Amino acid sequence: MRCAPFLSGRNAALFTDLYELKMAQAFLAEGMRESACFSLFFRRLPACRNYILACGVEDVLPYLESLRFSDEDIQYLASLGQFSDTFLAYLADFRFTGDVYAVPEGTPVFPQTPIIEVVAPVIEAQLIETWVMNQVHVQSVLASKAARVVEAAAGRPVLEFGARRIHGADGALKAARAGYIAGVAATSNVLAGRCYAIPVAGTMAHSYIQAHESEQQALRAFVREFPSTVLLVDTYDTLRGIDRVIELAKSLGADFNVQAVRIDSGDLAELAMAARRRLDDAGLQQVQIIASGGLDEQRITALLAQGAPIDGFGVGTAMGASVDAPTLDMAYKLVEYAGRGRLKLSTGKQTLPGQKQVFRQYTAGVAQQDVIGRWGERLPGMPLLQPVMLQGRRVGEEKPLPEVRSYAREMIESLPPTLRRLTQAPSTYPVALSDRLQGDQQAIMAKLRASH
Amino acid sequence: MRCAPFLSGRNAALFTDLYELKMAQAFLAEGMRESACFSLFFRRLPACRNYILACGVEDVLPYLESLRFSDEDIQYLASLGQFSDTFLAYLADFRFTGDVYAVPEGTPVFPQTPIIEVVAPVIEAQLIETWVMNQVHVQSVLASKAARVVEAAAGRPVLEFGARRIHGADGALKAARAGYIAGVAATSNVLAGRCYAIPVAGTMAHSYIQAHESEQQALRAFVREFPSTVLLVDTYDTLRGIDRVIELAKSLGADFNVQAVRIDSGDLAELAMAARRRLDDAGLQQVQIIASGGLDEQRITALLAQGAPIDGFGVGTAMGASVDAPTLDMAYKLVEYAGRGRLKLSTGKQTLPGQKQVFRQYTAGVAQQDVIGRWGERLPGMPLLQPVMLQGRRVGEEKPLPEVRSYAREMIESLPPTLRRLTQAPSTYPVALSDRLQGDQQAIMAKLRASH
Repeated sequence: MRCAPFLSGRNAALFTDLYELKMAQAFLAEGMRESACFSLFFRRLPACRNYILACGVEDVLPYLESLRFSDEDIQYLASLGQFSDTFLAYLADFRFTGDVYAVPEGTPVFPQTPIIEVVAPVIEAQLIETWVMNQVHVQSVLASKAARVVEAAAGRPVLEFGARRIHGADGALKAARAGYIAGVAATSNVLAGRCYAIPVAGTMAHSYIQAHESEQQALRAFVREFPSTVLLVDTYDTLRGIDRVIELAKSLGADFNVQAVRIDSGDLAELAMAARRRLDDAGLQQVQIIASGGLDEQRITALLAQGAPIDGFGVGTAMGASVDAPTLDMAYKLVEYAGRGRLKLSTGKQTLPGQKQVFRQYTAGVAQQDVIGRWGERLPGMPLLQPVMLQGRRVGEEKPLPEVRSYAREMIESLPPTLRRLTQAPSTYPVALSDRLQGDQQAIMAKLRASH
Repeated sequence: MRCAPFLSGRNAALFTDLYELKMAQAFLAEGMRESACFSLFFRRLPACRNYILACGVEDVLPYLESLRFSDEDIQYLASLGQFSDTFLAYLADFRFTGDVYAVPEGTPVFPQTPIIEVVAPVIEAQLIETWVMNQVHVQSVLASKAARVVEAAAGRPVLEFGARRIHGADGALKAARAGYIAGVAATSNVLAGRCYAIPVAGTMAHSYIQAHESEQQALRAFVREFPSTVLLVDTYDTLRGIDRVIELAKSLGADFNVQAVRIDSGDLAELAMAARRRLDDAGLQQVQIIASGGLDEQRITALLAQGAPIDGFGVGTAMGASVDAPTLDMAYKLVEYAGRGRLKLSTGKQTLPGQKQVFRQYTAGVAQQDVIGRWGERLPGMPLLQPVMLQGRRVGEEKPLPEVRSYAREMIESLPPTLRRLTQAPSTYPVALSDRLQGDQQAIMAKLRASH
């Protein structure tokens, strides 16, 4: 279900850069209505990423299917005094009628890999750039970060708590979705839970404890309402908080069903060890310890390396805003128009011409290299790009998110182990170009260089 | 106008962390309905910021005014099997009835300064935390970054081009709004232009040039449609691109009205100088030069320091995702309940008790220090917090954005000059606590320490 309509791109026609509309008017005036191919890819991995988990295409498809300029949209554009009546009339009937090819959500991808290719009349393929990039960029960036946090937690559940400091409401919803695909167990964001049918988690904040006359009174009251809850213990003094949980257990006896305590500040490793000892000494082996508070994959790794007895992690800001690598130099570039491959020669910004396919080659179940070829080529390996929309209509149904999540897990587990480490891999994953693609690229560049 | 309804918080009741609802149920069950005060502030400045420009409260007020749990929302919550019927019935009638005090949007603020204080029955003040923080956090982070870019551009217009790589659709809209408040001249985001009535800008991408058989043909066709446009010249070879603009000027004669050229790659300083010489030699002194491509405040400073003859800057990703400081350790903390100041003692997470006011003290028009006092205290200086909502209804009308922008400019210009520099200020801006506030804080801490 997509329950926040704008956020899946319905009624988002004006969510576009002004230049897309200017170019559209010029294309229209020139009668340039031939088919174009645009390719979405990224150029370089951030230093602290060994792969990117491609996500977000499912928020592109409803946008494309429903793309319409309303009367109000067109009135606004007219008010800018920059557009012709002919063009505004064209927009009133605008529909996306093209084809979209994409790697499945949850596929690890590398520099130059086409993540999405759009084949459509040039105006249509151009106009959609901003939304397509915005959605695939944010979800891929955040899923890639979440995959690292999940890796660090080494099987312990990661709970996503970032909504308050993720960039905007849409970003927060998409972070929950992308995180779930990457292996996060649950989100604190209730709307994300409803929109994406993913597990939600959360119990109490410090304010709840503080509003009571004493910590003991607060813990007791909360457990009365939610017997199998997680209790926050660090509001005043973490180990005194643990003692109060133990007192509560003694006084409730068989009615004590508290699932875990949460420690949100201080030296988490030391406090978790001391808390574990006190809980165990009190016979509360079943009470788990959840840690939170400024966590990321590096801090989680360090905590586990110190042997901290932590059973789950609440992770917020660092994951939800991917603070060490908040953006990716993702691009959406024209690679073909009117049947001819297209390139630009701008310094440091190479592109690969024409519609393409990516073949992932495996040995003994481990990915060895990707080969990018032209669409239609048959090369060894598993082809990654699949048609997801033809003539403006999606192909097949949206996959349930748990399936996407399992697929992502399999794909991550089939990567070379060095790529899954949290440090920079000693060598980058090999991505080669097919002979035909290389030949096409060289021929076009030679021709462009000769004429410019 | 707020034209993307969800994005100003209408129908966003479920955009909350699950724990807010759990605490609400517990408060309700305990009959804890007294008034609370929560304070929104941040704890530390990122190393690369000397102040934060507070923004976003205008997206909090419509959320609060319209906050309702729909039948579908309540059905979803019921389906989680964690909430009581009493609580779900309570939510069906839930309204926000509290008071909100805020510093005006565009106010530079410092660590510990209350940006917003909410006084409301504790359940209400608690439930709104996630949306309030999400909106004020993202807009304050992005406005603060944009203010630096505007500072670096030293009077030259900055155009915001970030929508494709800002985190999500809401983030992109809010970035445009926050940027405009911080002094950005225009956004490329058409929907932001419509929602916020701010200027939009943009002309052409490389794809437009590439789709044509030659660069010359593309430039000529575009100028026919948009005579006073900006032409992109770096698709193949920047200086050859400039030559083609000059050819176009010669062939069009008096009809040539091109406003500027845009250079998006390569050594921008060197290319801008060479382009300026060629344009001037051709008598095209009026054609301006716009630079773009991976720019931020540091690169803009470096370009201008090299004497690059650049008349305006297109800035995207680095500004729109605030990549050097993408988050702020903003918090929304209970500071009073049932008439008593509240604190927590968690390591490194100090709070200031009770409802407060901030007094900014000036000498000769330059801000010297802020003094945080209790609400109701009269101290020297300009009080920053104002009531913006009383009993659930906003006080006064929303200010037009150009007014907010002028206010922000004045407030920035009245800061000590070292804070406006792009490097870390030699000393932080002084923020003091009034005697009464200090006394209250110490008394509460002593009491808490005694009882814990």
